[in-house]
Amino acid sequence: MFDFTYHNPTKILFGKDAIERIREEIPSGAHVLMTYGGGSIHRNGVYERVKAALQGYRVTEFGGIEPNPQYATLMRAVELGRQAGVDFLLAVGGGSVLDGTKFIAAAIPFAGETWDIVEKRLEVREAVPLGAVLTLPGTGSEMNGWAVISHAEKRAKLAFYSPLVYPRFSALDPQTTFSLPPRQTANGIVDAFAHVMEQYVTYPVNAALQDRIAEAILVTLIEQAPKVMQNPTDYDARANIMWCATVALNGIVGVGVPQDWATHAIGHEITALYGIDHARTLALVLPAVLEFKREQKREKLLQYAERVWNLREGDEQSRIAGAIQRTRAFFESLDIPTRLSAYGIGAEAIPAIVRQLEAHGQTALGEHGDITPDVAAKILERCL
Amino acid sequence: MFDFTYHNPTKILFGKDAIERIREEIPSGAHVLMTYGGGSIHRNGVYERVKAALQGYRVTEFGGIEPNPQYATLMRAVELGRQAGVDFLLAVGGGSVLDGTKFIAAAIPFAGETWDIVEKRLEVREAVPLGAVLTLPGTGSEMNGWAVISHAEKRAKLAFYSPLVYPRFSALDPQTTFSLPPRQTANGIVDAFAHVMEQYVTYPVNAALQDRIAEAILVTLIEQAPKVMQNPTDYDARANIMWCATVALNGIVGVGVPQDWATHAIGHEITALYGIDHARTLALVLPAVLEFKREQKREKLLQYAERVWNLREGDEQSRIAGAIQRTRAFFESLDIPTRLSAYGIGAEAIPAIVRQLEAHGQTALGEHGDITPDVAAKILERCL
Repeated sequence: MFDFTYHNPTKILFGKDAIERIREEIPSGAHVLMTYGGGSIHRNGVYERVKAALQGYRVTEFGGIEPNPQYATLMRAVELGRQAGVDFLLAVGGGSVLDGTKFIAAAIPFAGETWDIVEKRLEVREAVPLGAVLTLPGTGSEMNGWAVISHAEKRAKLAFYSPLVYPRFSALDPQTTFSLPPRQTANGIVDAFAHVMEQYVTYPVNAALQDRIAEAILVTLIEQAPKVMQNPTDYDARANIMWCATVALNGIVGVGVPQDWATHAIGHEITALYGIDHARTLALVLPAVLEFKREQKREKLLQYAERVWNLREGDEQSRIAGAIQRTRAFFESLDIPTRLSAYGIGAEAIPAIVRQLEAHGQTALGEHGDITPDVAAKILERCL
Repeated sequence: MFDFTYHNPTKILFGKDAIERIREEIPSGAHVLMTYGGGSIHRNGVYERVKAALQGYRVTEFGGIEPNPQYATLMRAVELGRQAGVDFLLAVGGGSVLDGTKFIAAAIPFAGETWDIVEKRLEVREAVPLGAVLTLPGTGSEMNGWAVISHAEKRAKLAFYSPLVYPRFSALDPQTTFSLPPRQTANGIVDAFAHVMEQYVTYPVNAALQDRIAEAILVTLIEQAPKVMQNPTDYDARANIMWCATVALNGIVGVGVPQDWATHAIGHEITALYGIDHARTLALVLPAVLEFKREQKREKLLQYAERVWNLREGDEQSRIAGAIQRTRAFFESLDIPTRLSAYGIGAEAIPAIVRQLEAHGQTALGEHGDITPDVAAKILERCL
C-alpha cells in the first residue's frame, strides 16, 4: 500500500429532509449567492424548498450555469458576487453547477487572471465558503475539492483542485432525483462507475480494503441501476445510487493506490470538441483503455472479472475479455453507446483529439505515465 | 435507508513517514501536551520520532495513561494542562491514550464537575484541539468523536461523544505496530470486527453500499489476521489491519442503518467488574447476542453467512448457526476465548453484570431497544 493523506471535511446531509436542514449549516446573517442551472429546479420543487430554507437570509440568485460550465458564464457570477459582496455560495443542481460554483468561490477573492486558476493550476489561497444541494448524482463533486471548467473559445475542459473548495455541507435528498430524465440518471451511474474503475483497475499494491470498497460500489451500481431505470421513484434505489456516486469520488476508494485517469482526460477532450455528454465520453474511452492496457492491468482485470462479474471459468484472456465485454454491455443497457460511430464520428477525429491532449499537456497519462499521445491515438482507434 | 448526517473532519496521515508529517499539522508556537501510556513508545522508537517531529515546539509530557483510562489519572493530566496553559494535545498510543486525551481535551476548559461530561453526557462546548499518533489499531478512536472513560471507585466504564474531540489529525504508521505483543494485535482485530458487526447485523433497510462496505472490512480482517499473527512485520498486512480498524468506526459503515451496540455495553460492564481486556469481552458477548437474537437478526445473519463466510448450502438455521460458529472460531483462532469459563467466571457473575447495566441506564439495548436487563441476563447465560 502506498503512503497517503486522507482528509474530507464536507458534512453530508442525506435523506428526505436534507434540504430543510441546510439552514443549520449556513452562518446566520450571511449574504448567500444561490447558483443553479437551466431551471429544472423550478419544475421539481427544489427551488421552493431551498428558498424556504433560506428564509431570513439575504439571497442573490444566479441561474443559467450550463452543463460543462463555461468560464464566461461563471465570470458573470463572479462579477455579481463581487459587486453584491456575498459571503456564502449555495450551489443547487448537479455536478456542473457544483463545479462552476467551486470556481466562483475561488475566483471571487482571486487577484490575478482567474482562468489561470484552471489552466496554470495557480494555488487558491482564499475562497468564499460554499454549500451544495445536489440534484443529479454522478460527478461526486458534492464531497471533494475538484472542479472541471470549460472554456469554449479555447476549446478547453480542464480540472482544478483546492482544499478550500470542498463544500462545507452537501444536502442529498434522493427524492430530488425522481424526476431526472433517464438519460441523466444513466449518465450519473456511468460517471460514478468510471470514477471507481479509474482508481481500481491499475496494478495491485495489496490495498485489500480499498479494492473491496471499490468492488462494493461497482457491484451496487450494477445491482441498483436497472431498479432506478425501471422505477424512477424507488427511493432506496435512488438513495443507493446517490450514495455510491458520492463515495466513488470522496477519496476513500483511491487512498494508497495507483490511479489511472486517462479515461477522464481523453473524455474531456471529446466533450470539448464534439459536445458529447461527459459520462458518455467515459463509456467510449474506458473499455478501450482496458482493452489496450489489458497486459499491464492483467491482475486487476482478473480480480475485477472474478469479484464484480463472477467470472471464474475459462483461461485468463477469456475472463478479461468477458469482464470488458460485460462492462460495455452494462453501459449499453443504460442506452449509453460505447462506440464513437454511434455519434457519427470516425477515425478523422483521432488526430484532433490527440492534438488537444498535447495542447493541454496531457501527454503522460495512466498509472505508469506511459499513455503518450501516440498511445492515446491507438486507444481511440478501439473506440471507433 | 434511514436519513443521516455524515461529517468526519479528521485528517489521516498514513504510511511510513506519518509521524514525521505531524509537524505540518500542529500550529506553530503551540504549547503541546504530549500524552502516552505505560512506556511502550520508549521501547519501539516512537517516542524519539515524535519528539524529533515536535522539535521547536514547547512540549509538556504526561505518561502513564492506563488501559481503560481512569478518570483519576486523566484528571492529573487536566490539572497539568491547565497549569501549563497548553493549547494543543498530542496523544501517542492506542485507543486508551486517545480516549483519555479526548477527555482531557474536553475537561481542561470545562467549568463544572468534569465527570459529568461522561456520566451525564453534558454538552462539551469547548475543547483543546488534539492530534494523535496511533500505535495500536482497533478502537477506531483515531477518526471519531467517541471516548470511553473508566472510573475505578464507581466501577464505571462509560462513553461520551463530542464533535469537538475528533482528532485534527491522526498519524498511522503501520511499522509502529510491528512490535505489538500478539495479544494486543489480536485484541485490535477483534475490536474492529465487533465494531462492524454491531453496525451491520441488525435488520435490512436496503442500504446496499453500507452493507457491502461492512462485508469488505469483515472479509479483509479475516483474510489479513493470520498474516499479521504469523508475520508481525508484514507491512501490507499491518497496513490493511490498521486501515480496516479506522474505517470500521469512522462512521461510514453506520450511516443510514440501524445499529446494535449491546455487545459493547455489556462488554464494558464485564471489563469494569472483572478487568478483562475490552476486545476480549466483545468476543464473549457478540456470539451470544447473535445466537439469542437470531430470529430478529435472521435476514442479516443469512446475508453475513453468505457474503462473509460463503455459506450457501443447507437450510437457514444451519447457515446461521454456521456463521456464528465461524465467528467464534475466528476469535478463538486469535487465542481469544468466547466463553466466560475461560476466565474462571461462572453464572454468579450474571446478576452483578446486570445490576451494573441497570445502574448505568443501559436498560434498552439493541437495534429494537428490547434488550432489557432480563434479556441481557439470558444473553450472558450463553456466554458461560
